[in-house]
Amino acid sequence: ESGAFQQVRFTLNTTLRPVEVAHLLEKSPPKERQILWNLVHHENEAKVLQHLADDIQADILATMDTDRVLEISESLETDDLADMLQQLPETVTRELLKIMDEQNRERIEEILAYPEDTAGGLMNTDTVTVRPDITVETVLRYIRRHDEIPDMTDSLFVISRKKESYIGILPLTKLLVSDPDITVREIMNTDIEPIPADMPDDEVAKLFEQQDLVSAPVVNTKGKLVGRITIDDVVDVIREDADHSLMSMAGLDEDEDTFAPLMKTTRRRAVWLGINLITALLASAVIGMFQATIDQVVALAVLMPIVASMGGIAGSQTLTLVIRGQALGHVERSNAGWLLNRELLVGGLNGILWAVVVSSVAIYWFQDTTIGMVIGMAIVINLVAGALAGTLLPLILKAWGIDPALAGSVLLTTITDVVGFLAFLGLATYFYG
Amino acid sequence: ESGAFQQVRFTLNTTLRPVEVAHLLEKSPPKERQILWNLVHHENEAKVLQHLADDIQADILATMDTDRVLEISESLETDDLADMLQQLPETVTRELLKIMDEQNRERIEEILAYPEDTAGGLMNTDTVTVRPDITVETVLRYIRRHDEIPDMTDSLFVISRKKESYIGILPLTKLLVSDPDITVREIMNTDIEPIPADMPDDEVAKLFEQQDLVSAPVVNTKGKLVGRITIDDVVDVIREDADHSLMSMAGLDEDEDTFAPLMKTTRRRAVWLGINLITALLASAVIGMFQATIDQVVALAVLMPIVASMGGIAGSQTLTLVIRGQALGHVERSNAGWLLNRELLVGGLNGILWAVVVSSVAIYWFQDTTIGMVIGMAIVINLVAGALAGTLLPLILKAWGIDPALAGSVLLTTITDVVGFLAFLGLATYFYG
Repeated sequence: ESGAFQQVRFTLNTTLRPVEVAHLLEKSPPKERQILWNLVHHENEAKVLQHLADDIQADILATMDTDRVLEISESLETDDLADMLQQLPETVTRELLKIMDEQNRERIEEILAYPEDTAGGLMNTDTVTVRPDITVETVLRYIRRHDEIPDMTDSLFVISRKKESYIGILPLTKLLVSDPDITVREIMNTDIEPIPADMPDDEVAKLFEQQDLVSAPVVNTKGKLVGRITIDDVVDVIREDADHSLMSMAGLDEDEDTFAPLMKTTRRRAVWLGINLITALLASAVIGMFQATIDQVVALAVLMPIVASMGGIAGSQTLTLVIRGQALGHVERSNAGWLLNRELLVGGLNGILWAVVVSSVAIYWFQDTTIGMVIGMAIVINLVAGALAGTLLPLILKAWGIDPALAGSVLLTTITDVVGFLAFLGLATYFYG
Repeated sequence: ESGAFQQVRFTLNTTLRPVEVAHLLEKSPPKERQILWNLVHHENEAKVLQHLADDIQADILATMDTDRVLEISESLETDDLADMLQQLPETVTRELLKIMDEQNRERIEEILAYPEDTAGGLMNTDTVTVRPDITVETVLRYIRRHDEIPDMTDSLFVISRKKESYIGILPLTKLLVSDPDITVREIMNTDIEPIPADMPDDEVAKLFEQQDLVSAPVVNTKGKLVGRITIDDVVDVIREDADHSLMSMAGLDEDEDTFAPLMKTTRRRAVWLGINLITALLASAVIGMFQATIDQVVALAVLMPIVASMGGIAGSQTLTLVIRGQALGHVERSNAGWLLNRELLVGGLNGILWAVVVSSVAIYWFQDTTIGMVIGMAIVINLVAGALAGTLLPLILKAWGIDPALAGSVLLTTITDVVGFLAFLGLATYFYG
């Protein structure tokens, strides 16, 4: 083994933190990634794996045998382990659970019982709990008996003696300033509602953002404390949700590996291009209906992309605004009417403004007032159509349970292309016919 | 005043938390927003204001007189106040600072000295500090003398006696499990590097994400502790940064008020449409060069949008991937070559695949093999051009200090439109000429 390799191995396993090694792997092309991964020491693999994006984690896990995956699983926290198991084929997961020791299996099965994108899938089981009837001094003595408290512990959870039901939280900051003789019950905070284990993860994120939480208790349907969610995992949810809209609008997945290998990338992109080809063929079919008119006035062919393009741009501005508004919880039934109304007016006003500009250009260019009039009218129509589609599509798609970010942009382009060509060439046929 | 109003007033000021009131205002059209705001009690205004998006905060502050703004400023934390001041005109800010009491002014000026998007602009000054040579017992007694500790305090900061230089942190979880007789120096953590006040906020966010921090110390160039950053403010940075790419690619601002009034929206959108019109006119000019060919073969007009559209879609997939990769810190000089190479190959392979499909459709539709050959070649050329532009544009724009998310999509469309029409109509002119 060469000196250079030895140095890289040292850097990977000693100098860098696991999260930095994960980042390095994520930004390496496939071959380099494989070489670097082989240089990571066995005992560090688990920590590095848990920080990798899902896509890449799955790729690496697929190359390991079950024994090795089991070894790795033993050194992970329960929530990270559950995440990892969700990247594995069902058969491997079942086999792993079989050979796991009982305590771990129960914890994991508790988390796996909830879908990955719910509070239950997000939680870990590292809670520090106290009873309500003991004094602050007893709590402090109880804590001092620990060698360490789990990271991100900003609060102890108060649970009932009998059924382990969640009662309230006791922030460490409160504990530290309270009279030692007072009981937990007197100083605990019962304002924080516990999070039901089946709450969707984006709602969990909203709760954390609204209430500035660091950790929060998770309860099952019977009110029993089953775990806690910590802000570090919520931050991942926030980033993924925000990335989701951006990537989906381009037909990409938010987990997409930037350095995915050639054929994998080609296959995924081909699907999106195929879907968009249908849109393009539809637009061509519309143009095809007006071949005779174009044959008569060839300037129409020169100008027609302008109409489609302006409608598409205006529509996608509306679409993006509404999709972002939905993600932030701003857009709902009660205010959708106002929004649609404003967008139609914005479309109309900007339509008129740019119709005047484009008309003038067209008249000057082709010395033909009819073509100026036709393109002006078509632009107003298409900008209003873009506003209408941009507002209504995400609302309808969401109501139907379809992701507006993924389907919205394709459908919008279809509409503004079809309406744009139809209005422009249709009006031209009428006026020149 | 009617009963309904009284009830809304009660809900706004008693039932809902300030952050929920802010959310309600954000999702209300202008008129309703004004009415709701007028129902918020004076003593709650500050807390609601600090949770509003910048755009809306600025609108509301603009309607207040300086005295009222001063009143509000007195009940805000320093970091929130500094944020608010950045929404006010310079003259108002200066006037406010003049009439502020000295202690507050000094704190605010310290924060305002740093740009809003740096660690200094993000920090607050609510630090709890201890000296390294005292014992755990003394620390606990010192803390118990407080009535409360600031929210989000997960660590005390250890500073030197003389120059208040930052030395290390003492996590509360560590404090609680340590022997009372041990000194702070023996248990403090010196691994966490303090954050320089001039670090850009997106780098701060990366540090918090990588190290799972809840709060972190901020130091000035001399190493003196000047404040701390807490995860709640970092979460805002993460969300805004992630929103930025999505909104910018549609020419929108990430602070954009979903319910901005009609004329404000119309004006902002008009600018973006104007910029995109230049792109569309350029494309038209290219088509204009080939009017004679189109006049001869009108089928070209029918098919030409397919070429431009396929190139645009493929290019924007690459562009989005690279822009996201830049935001995550994945794409840099060392791996850009690999990425460009893969994207060109993906473009080429998908180009060939879809060229075959579109060729067949065109030949069948127009019973003309020449047009099939021409459109097939043009599609391959344009998909490769889209891959090239999609990869290189964000790299070049970033190197020039221009925001790739904002300028990238317009430039990309320009390139795929121009190349698409030029290749298709140029080849047609050659083969039919």
